Amino acid sequence: MSAAEQFHVDEVSPSYWRVTFDNGPVNLLDADTIDQLGVLVGRIENAPDLTVVVFRSDKPGYFMAHWDFLADNARVAAMQPGPTGLHPYVDNFVRLGRLPVATISEIRGRARGAGSEFVLATDIRFASEKAILGQFEVGVDAVPGGGPMARLGRLVGRGRALEILLGGDDVPAALAAEYGYVNRVIPDGEIENFTDAFARRIAAFDKVAVAGIKKLVDAATLPDDAEFAAGLQAYFATAGRPERRPFVQLLFKNGMQQPDGIETDLGTAIGKLRQTANG
Amino acid sequence: MSAAEQFHVDEVSPSYWRVTFDNGPVNLLDADTIDQLGVLVGRIENAPDLTVVVFRSDKPGYFMAHWDFLADNARVAAMQPGPTGLHPYVDNFVRLGRLPVATISEIRGRARGAGSEFVLATDIRFASEKAILGQFEVGVDAVPGGGPMARLGRLVGRGRALEILLGGDDVPAALAAEYGYVNRVIPDGEIENFTDAFARRIAAFDKVAVAGIKKLVDAATLPDDAEFAAGLQAYFATAGRPERRPFVQLLFKNGMQQPDGIETDLGTAIGKLRQTANG
Amino acid sequence: MSAAEQFHVDEVSPSYWRVTFDNGPVNLLDADTIDQLGVLVGRIENAPDLTVVVFRSDKPGYFMAHWDFLADNARVAAMQPGPTGLHPYVDNFVRLGRLPVATISEIRGRARGAGSEFVLATDIRFASEKAILGQFEVGVDAVPGGGPMARLGRLVGRGRALEILLGGDDVPAALAAEYGYVNRVIPDGEIENFTDAFARRIAAFDKVAVAGIKKLVDAATLPDDAEFAAGLQAYFATAGRPERRPFVQLLFKNGMQQPDGIETDLGTAIGKLRQTANG
Repeated sequence: MSAAEQFHVDEVSPSYWRVTFDNGPVNLLDADTIDQLGVLVGRIENAPDLTVVVFRSDKPGYFMAHWDFLADNARVAAMQPGPTGLHPYVDNFVRLGRLPVATISEIRGRARGAGSEFVLATDIRFASEKAILGQFEVGVDAVPGGGPMARLGRLVGRGRALEILLGGDDVPAALAAEYGYVNRVIPDGEIENFTDAFARRIAAFDKVAVAGIKKLVDAATLPDDAEFAAGLQAYFATAGRPERRPFVQLLFKNGMQQPDGIETDLGTAIGKLRQTANG
Repeated sequence: MSAAEQFHVDEVSPSYWRVTFDNGPVNLLDADTIDQLGVLVGRIENAPDLTVVVFRSDKPGYFMAHWDFLADNARVAAMQPGPTGLHPYVDNFVRLGRLPVATISEIRGRARGAGSEFVLATDIRFASEKAILGQFEVGVDAVPGGGPMARLGRLVGRGRALEILLGGDDVPAALAAEYGYVNRVIPDGEIENFTDAFARRIAAFDKVAVAGIKKLVDAATLPDDAEFAAGLQAYFATAGRPERRPFVQLLFKNGMQQPDGIETDLGTAIGKLRQTANG
Repeated sequence: MSAAEQFHVDEVSPSYWRVTFDNGPVNLLDADTIDQLGVLVGRIENAPDLTVVVFRSDKPGYFMAHWDFLADNARVAAMQPGPTGLHPYVDNFVRLGRLPVATISEIRGRARGAGSEFVLATDIRFASEKAILGQFEVGVDAVPGGGPMARLGRLVGRGRALEILLGGDDVPAALAAEYGYVNRVIPDGEIENFTDAFARRIAAFDKVAVAGIKKLVDAATLPDDAEFAAGLQAYFATAGRPERRPFVQLLFKNGMQQPDGIETDLGTAIGKLRQTANG
């Protein structure tokens, strides 16, 4: 992908920003995403009147597909720690969670792997019936790196977190809402207006109250930073091991990272392919 | 309001009490409520055979509307700490949570702000389809004072807690059950019998078992007292700031604290009025 | 019951085991169960390629009924601590929770008391509409011993945990799913295929990834061992007190521990009998 701006920021008002993510046909995350998200989080941290940010996508079918399997991993590995002392990949997510503003993911397409980790780092997740979430990393023999072990266990409970993380299957919107993985499902034709109306409420509220509430909910609900460090370490130790390359090549042969191939049901498909490939 | 008894206690049996709250047309909470709830909690703590207490209201449409905006705040600010060392407002709620008996809120009307904080401090929340919950404080530029940041995050998960607390909107019974804000919804025509039958079960059980179970669930689920202290401090720092007075006056012009005006959809209405008032 | 093997292990493949529990007409747990489960957990801990274990029952209507009221309690009390330093009853459950494999309960019948504690110690609970769960111990004046105070509070939230544990009533499958007590309900005619397909996915995944994910979810979600020690101590202090013997005899007169008597609705029935017996 390119170094062009992946996060398009529409400053609707000083208290309300609308951010559209755009990176290739399925919205992959890559090394540039890490750098640019770091910059964006810094801008939000320093916006004096901002109380609400909505994250969205204009890409049909895709909110954020997942981490780019062709990304420059050497560049990522060499990145310097961010303000929290953590690697920037999780530093971004940790700082996103602690922002003194409400952050909302409006999910109308797929958000798997790193895309799921992104939405889990935002405060509120509204999904349309077209949303599909999931953490398929177990299917490519990796521990997810962006903290879903820490977050999902607290959000949906141990049993459902383990089903999502060890099963690695796709989680359609309705099941995601039943489990608490997303807040609720809003019909796809209404979700833009719904999210906008919800954001405009918060945009009309006082920053002191919004930030004060956030801080106390953060204290009650956010995992310790150490859990994110351990998760990323497990990811680096497991992802991209050479013995997995043939399987990843098989995924690319099936159209991975393209809109109409295996990406449509990636989590489910990986499970099937693994059983065939092993058998 | 008056210093008359706001909590009417019906001692159905030595093991089962039924408490009806009554304070004005919409059941506001005020300085007297704090004093009287403290006395009631003390009575429950010392009732040797009591295993279950049901809290309810006979006021159509209202369980407990919210904190009285006309209450004597100087009197409240001057109150001496309760047995936990906390201000009596949260001391009551903390002690309510730790009682060696089962406490049940039977919610057939509105329970917002301090009323929501009250039901969150009880063990079990049964709601009829007429119940409406919410924490609208953000809409009057305040951090809620009675601990919902500490409690909701653990009860409904971070995402839904932030939606409730930062959106400040009304939460109708069905959504409250979907989120886990209440245990479940029972049809309004059946809820009295349902709650009574549930309470009579517990009333027939041994206090040693009830108290023993409570103590261990408390250890697993209750926030530290420090979280309640921080929440109340944030409330005192944000509530009633002079710049908000014109907006509160606008709410009174719209019938606040009366049964048929803006109280019917207070959370929703405040969001709309704020957008108009600011715009 | 006998010392015959209660856990029938079908090693479907080196990565997938299917375990069928079998102990009398309603699948009671007893002193032998403790010994044999300890052995089984040890086998699973040491199986190098195992990634998934399914627990199930062939007994119509019963997954695991509950602890055998006629078990040799002196033998249980005299058991030496297991590897965690805890009594083997909870040592088994704690080690079951920390296994480096996915454990799944396929629940098509009743799982109450110790049976509920067993499924809560497994990672994932799939239930058919014929499943009934519950912790009825409060109804026989005991604090449950296998940790549900520690587990349910975190899994379903404080309010619903207290309803389950203090009400002691039967929890049918649909309500169990609504509360998060089980992951979800799968039609009884489909659940065997569903669970098998889910297990075969995980069986195709790499042990390093499965174990790595489990370890981090465990860190985020498992209670401290001390909570299990306190729970079992409360059980030993409350269960089997002499004053309760007449009531237990009444339960046996009503067919307890037989498939077609009071076991069918045990939680509900105990509540009714207690009210009659006391009244």
